[in-house]
Amino acid sequence: MKFCSDCGAPVTLKVPPGDNLPRHVCDACSAIHYVNPRMVIGCIPEWEDRVLLCRRAIEPRYGLWTLPAGFMENGETVAQAAARETLEEARARVELAEMFTVLSVPHVNQVHIFYRARLLDLDFGPGAESLDVKLVPEAEVPWQEIAFRTISTTLRHYYADRKAGSFSFHSGEILPVR
Amino acid sequence: MKFCSDCGAPVTLKVPPGDNLPRHVCDACSAIHYVNPRMVIGCIPEWEDRVLLCRRAIEPRYGLWTLPAGFMENGETVAQAAARETLEEARARVELAEMFTVLSVPHVNQVHIFYRARLLDLDFGPGAESLDVKLVPEAEVPWQEIAFRTISTTLRHYYADRKAGSFSFHSGEILPVR
Repeated sequence: MKFCSDCGAPVTLKVPPGDNLPRHVCDACSAIHYVNPRMVIGCIPEWEDRVLLCRRAIEPRYGLWTLPAGFMENGETVAQAAARETLEEARARVELAEMFTVLSVPHVNQVHIFYRARLLDLDFGPGAESLDVKLVPEAEVPWQEIAFRTISTTLRHYYADRKAGSFSFHSGEILPVR
Repeated sequence: MKFCSDCGAPVTLKVPPGDNLPRHVCDACSAIHYVNPRMVIGCIPEWEDRVLLCRRAIEPRYGLWTLPAGFMENGETVAQAAARETLEEARARVELAEMFTVLSVPHVNQVHIFYRARLLDLDFGPGAESLDVKLVPEAEVPWQEIAFRTISTTLRHYYADRKAGSFSFHSGEILPVR
């Protein structure tokens, strides 16, 4: 951020009075421009013993596999974001079940949230941001080609809970690889 | 948003190619400026049968009661945000327990997340954004003077679960009052 989005004057990074972190503050109108983490919301669409995965048609991680997910928009609920992203990326309609994972990814300023979901029909296919969409059984999950660690973490919790016979909620964090 | 934060030129609200929502797009450099929901993170600090409430010293809802909470910052986890806000607003140190509620508030573009937490000692007091901080038993919760519905909803889940003898995770949404 270099310019004030309110008045167009240059901004300076400094700690405002009463604050304890540097913010972009307008040199002209004194507006303080906060920047906050963004939420990435998606789901695990289930059909019998399989889950729906999408192969990414966009960067980052072009060509790798993910669960349908994307940035939450203003004006929607977390659940609405999960259903919308599933429709956009996999052209799939789902009935959401419980919220399943909430994972902080502090080094990229994101929080990822996934629901379990029931795929309503088999009329799905790649949206604009997907190369391919397919239902895979556990044995065919491409673990070495998963796009993000929040996805592999969510899938691991999913299969572990399924094996244990009961799903529970999981929160945690994904830290940078050292 | 009126000006581009990258180059300072005016922005126009329009639907970018391949998108389906209007965004602020720079007339000069074509940068697209997305605006996303913000997260408000806090906790329920427990001490024996009481919980720690803060009386707000800032707008909105000046003078009303809340759980310690505030906007999540870039670079931190949800759990770190909860502990930081509790230290800032109530000068209180906590050991976080489970994530307890995730509540969407779509009409204000926010998601509120609360943990249960154990207050570590009785050395607490009002931070800069609080008029007062106190430990209250259930019978003394000022239900008619709670600042936000996410707070009253979280407290209601807390007392219902405590009465039932077992705490579980709750997600949901707070819609506008009709």
